[in-house]
Amino acid sequence: MFKNLDFSGQEIRRGDFIRTDIALASGPVSRNSAIDLPDEDPPNLPPSTAFARAVVLVGMPGAGKTAIGRRLAARLGMPFRDADAEIESAAGMPITEIFARYGEPHFRDGERRVITRLLAGPPLVLATGGGAFADAATRDAIKRSGAVTLWLRCELATLLRRVAGREHRPMFLNADPAEVLQRLMAARHPFYAEADVTVQCTDESPEVTTRRVQEAVEHATTPRRLPVSLGEHGYDVVVGRGLLGRAGGLIAPVLPARRVVVVSDAAVAALHLPALRAGLEAAEIKVLAEIAVPPGESSKDFARLQDVLERMLAAGLDRRTTVVALGGGVVGDLAGFAAAVAMRGVPFVQVPTTLLAQVDSSVGGKTGVNLKAGKNLAGAFHQPRIVLADTDTLATLPPRELRAGYAEVAKHGLLQGALWDWCEAHGGAAVAGDGDALTHAVLESCRLKAAVVAADEREESAEGGRALLNLGHTFGHALEAECGFDGTLLHGEAVAVGLGLAASLSARLGHCSQEWPSRVIAHLAACGLPARIGDLPHRFTVDALMGRMAKDKKNRDGQMRFVLLRGPGDVFTSSEVPREAVTALLRDEGAAS
Amino acid sequence: MFKNLDFSGQEIRRGDFIRTDIALASGPVSRNSAIDLPDEDPPNLPPSTAFARAVVLVGMPGAGKTAIGRRLAARLGMPFRDADAEIESAAGMPITEIFARYGEPHFRDGERRVITRLLAGPPLVLATGGGAFADAATRDAIKRSGAVTLWLRCELATLLRRVAGREHRPMFLNADPAEVLQRLMAARHPFYAEADVTVQCTDESPEVTTRRVQEAVEHATTPRRLPVSLGEHGYDVVVGRGLLGRAGGLIAPVLPARRVVVVSDAAVAALHLPALRAGLEAAEIKVLAEIAVPPGESSKDFARLQDVLERMLAAGLDRRTTVVALGGGVVGDLAGFAAAVAMRGVPFVQVPTTLLAQVDSSVGGKTGVNLKAGKNLAGAFHQPRIVLADTDTLATLPPRELRAGYAEVAKHGLLQGALWDWCEAHGGAAVAGDGDALTHAVLESCRLKAAVVAADEREESAEGGRALLNLGHTFGHALEAECGFDGTLLHGEAVAVGLGLAASLSARLGHCSQEWPSRVIAHLAACGLPARIGDLPHRFTVDALMGRMAKDKKNRDGQMRFVLLRGPGDVFTSSEVPREAVTALLRDEGAAS
Repeated sequence: MFKNLDFSGQEIRRGDFIRTDIALASGPVSRNSAIDLPDEDPPNLPPSTAFARAVVLVGMPGAGKTAIGRRLAARLGMPFRDADAEIESAAGMPITEIFARYGEPHFRDGERRVITRLLAGPPLVLATGGGAFADAATRDAIKRSGAVTLWLRCELATLLRRVAGREHRPMFLNADPAEVLQRLMAARHPFYAEADVTVQCTDESPEVTTRRVQEAVEHATTPRRLPVSLGEHGYDVVVGRGLLGRAGGLIAPVLPARRVVVVSDAAVAALHLPALRAGLEAAEIKVLAEIAVPPGESSKDFARLQDVLERMLAAGLDRRTTVVALGGGVVGDLAGFAAAVAMRGVPFVQVPTTLLAQVDSSVGGKTGVNLKAGKNLAGAFHQPRIVLADTDTLATLPPRELRAGYAEVAKHGLLQGALWDWCEAHGGAAVAGDGDALTHAVLESCRLKAAVVAADEREESAEGGRALLNLGHTFGHALEAECGFDGTLLHGEAVAVGLGLAASLSARLGHCSQEWPSRVIAHLAACGLPARIGDLPHRFTVDALMGRMAKDKKNRDGQMRFVLLRGPGDVFTSSEVPREAVTALLRDEGAAS
Repeated sequence: MFKNLDFSGQEIRRGDFIRTDIALASGPVSRNSAIDLPDEDPPNLPPSTAFARAVVLVGMPGAGKTAIGRRLAARLGMPFRDADAEIESAAGMPITEIFARYGEPHFRDGERRVITRLLAGPPLVLATGGGAFADAATRDAIKRSGAVTLWLRCELATLLRRVAGREHRPMFLNADPAEVLQRLMAARHPFYAEADVTVQCTDESPEVTTRRVQEAVEHATTPRRLPVSLGEHGYDVVVGRGLLGRAGGLIAPVLPARRVVVVSDAAVAALHLPALRAGLEAAEIKVLAEIAVPPGESSKDFARLQDVLERMLAAGLDRRTTVVALGGGVVGDLAGFAAAVAMRGVPFVQVPTTLLAQVDSSVGGKTGVNLKAGKNLAGAFHQPRIVLADTDTLATLPPRELRAGYAEVAKHGLLQGALWDWCEAHGGAAVAGDGDALTHAVLESCRLKAAVVAADEREESAEGGRALLNLGHTFGHALEAECGFDGTLLHGEAVAVGLGLAASLSARLGHCSQEWPSRVIAHLAACGLPARIGDLPHRFTVDALMGRMAKDKKNRDGQMRFVLLRGPGDVFTSSEVPREAVTALLRDEGAAS
């Protein structure tokens, strides 16, 4: 067998084109998987100071992958390889001949093996053939390698000028190059859009383009993926910056067809819909309708649900059209419920734009609307296909909403343990809008919630399970209901007070020392959140709150259920809390008897 | 080991009370299982002419199980056994001593083994101890044996008179007998209600009671159970006569708690709610609310759905409350959808009262309401816990509705093959209201539908699967929509014409000979159904029908899908029907071009 040692000592074999060597191909890939993230930091994140990842250039023939690639490699101090040249060398024949002799499927298999092996070695800049990234398995292999993928995007006119004189290429033989290129662009652009970075190329000099490409590559980050393991309903929560503009490429792999309906609220749409629209368009995902509902809890009702459904269907939604929810909890719950029931269920994607939605409501598949009888009393479990938590969107949040969302982070801290320590140390930075702190808060909250949801998708556990996520909520829901959902008390603020009360109740019942209610209340107060009933501008009565709690939908056979804590990371459900302990606590905290 | 051969040569062992002999206990039971029915006729149905099943008497102490049992055995010419006496003989000690020495759980295990072994032998009349049928595992073993179970139901006053003088019984020691009996009745009546037959006993002579019991036993039928195999969502379709009055006992085993909300329509409620209510009450199932909606398709809308939900929740529905749908397809779809979304899903029971609902809509878990954009466009897959198809209710149906429901039976015949032959032979009797023919039609339709649904619960098969159930429906839905759902064309009538058109289209495309459309049309016409467009009193245009069909929710990526047949039992889906073939057919059938 002909062997060829490349500069890195790595072997390239002609065998690539003769047999399928699965062990060789899959071995190095799984080492660097970006899909099945382990719980801890994965190896494929770039160190923040040095650039140390492979760069894979994708794009049409004539986009400049080789010309720009060579220059970029020199600037980054990395080797450059051209996949097509490597393939020809491995096969010992021109690509045209491989195609002619063995057909395209055989060529794609070999191409994938060569690319996979090159990416398993030390970082390099790799130019790929125009069809490589349009092949699903090759695209997947490249993504799993942890390389930064970069699409050199050119207009047809530019490409035509560049390929002029190459009409002898087999692809243009006996055909109009403009027509050929246009057809290929239509077929491939949707897949190129899945690249991490897109750089629009014009007729500027290769040096200028290379400088822009280098800048884009150096700023590129691969968003974090947290898998929610729910068998066939499993999905990823993607957390990172700038996800809206890349939404098309990120969601395309999980869509049954490139058709969506976007549901948003008027306020969020004004801020974020243009970026999302552009991101979807880049992957040629057709937006059948953009449906904006009025902002606020009042949109979570039956009339609005029906209106959204009628508008979706009038726009031509079918069973393979996906509903994309862009907004906070109200939009996610409403659009998710609409997706759950439209034609008895269509696919659904969450793009949460508030901290509350990113850390809580968008993960776990709970959707619904309110009834007169109470909040969220009509709904469905309908898991999204993917959740895109773009932390850039948090910068546009009013500070009070950011703080309210943080209450759920603190709750996750108490459930998880180590995250509580982080909260006490960095929660202040998060509520002040620090990007890194917020990203950490979102990531760790989603990680916790994904684990809890995976263990108890439909909240059926007799003890513990999803019910633990209700820490602080038995009290919180009652406070919120008493205030009438009119915005005077935000959900997160009610949860903050509820956390303080749950900790106090736990201490009174002897499950934890007085240290914990004191620390919980002190931390929430330090983050600008109400933490005690007395912090709220509303007068409550013990009877009214007890009456609300008696109707909580988590109760079983008429027994009130509380979530109590022994300390951060040690939380449990109990149906055996004496009524008097609760009424005494509420009275002592200032509720009128 | 002490051995005791009874009259039948069967062995009773003292070992029953010393070790748990699972092999012995479960062997004979599975032979006669009434739960896991095979596809073909199960062995536990009584021959229609001779009574040849064991009879198990259950009821309170003092109900007369032994006194009546002996007399009944003599009349039926069967041996009589008293389970308590057999237990004492097997254990070699009085029951009081077994209780005292080993405790109740040990006693119940032994009791179950003795009863199971007695029922595995030749038919007998068996009186059981008062607690036997209240034990879940023993109750299950008795049901699985195929015996007729009979509850001798007495009022407290009667029981008190009968147990007078038995105050030395351990159960009454140092206690007020009235109080003890009342407590036991409250605990056991809900389980006694699961017996096949209930006979109310008074102070009449044992002979009179025995005559009434004999009559009840001889008329007892065990309803047929068809399992719908859907893993954890699996359930039984129970088909038979007089099920409403036994509803409580039949559904109790699948309810999480003995609380229900009944949804019906005003017309059906007037006819059948009293029987259902009595049946539920007998098993002490609390009816939190009876919600009646106006009859007709107009009730399947969002406003009605919301109203039903609000009324359910106002009545105190919680996650362990079951929704019972009593009525036709409209009620089943509406109530089922309400159950699917109330608190994100509560249990659900279908009690269909029309032929259409019994043979089609109540099996398979499709629920939903209509939107302006079309029928059933908002809904959920929500499988019932059990379906009770009481064929007695069909006697109250208007003949036109019965005929319309029969169209779905004929459709199932074409899907299944052998059932089509039955249809041609006996369909006329069914539409004329013949009870046996209707029972056969319901049973075989449910059997077919259960098999199709089990293989493709959510209609996700690329080819075939649930979509096959749409035979005749692509045309049917279009005809129905054109007529405006105002009752001028019933769903089943539209399906009948659709079946004729589907058969004609299949013949035109060369999939079957002209014989089949001719036979299909002739059979439907003979059953008093419209079978051709010309039979309908409405003028249709080709364009309007084609427009309706283009919007069918079974279409994929804009391609119309048809279900075609090669012959009865050989049916397939196709997305490759030339538009022109369809328009030509419609034109030739009389639609205006």
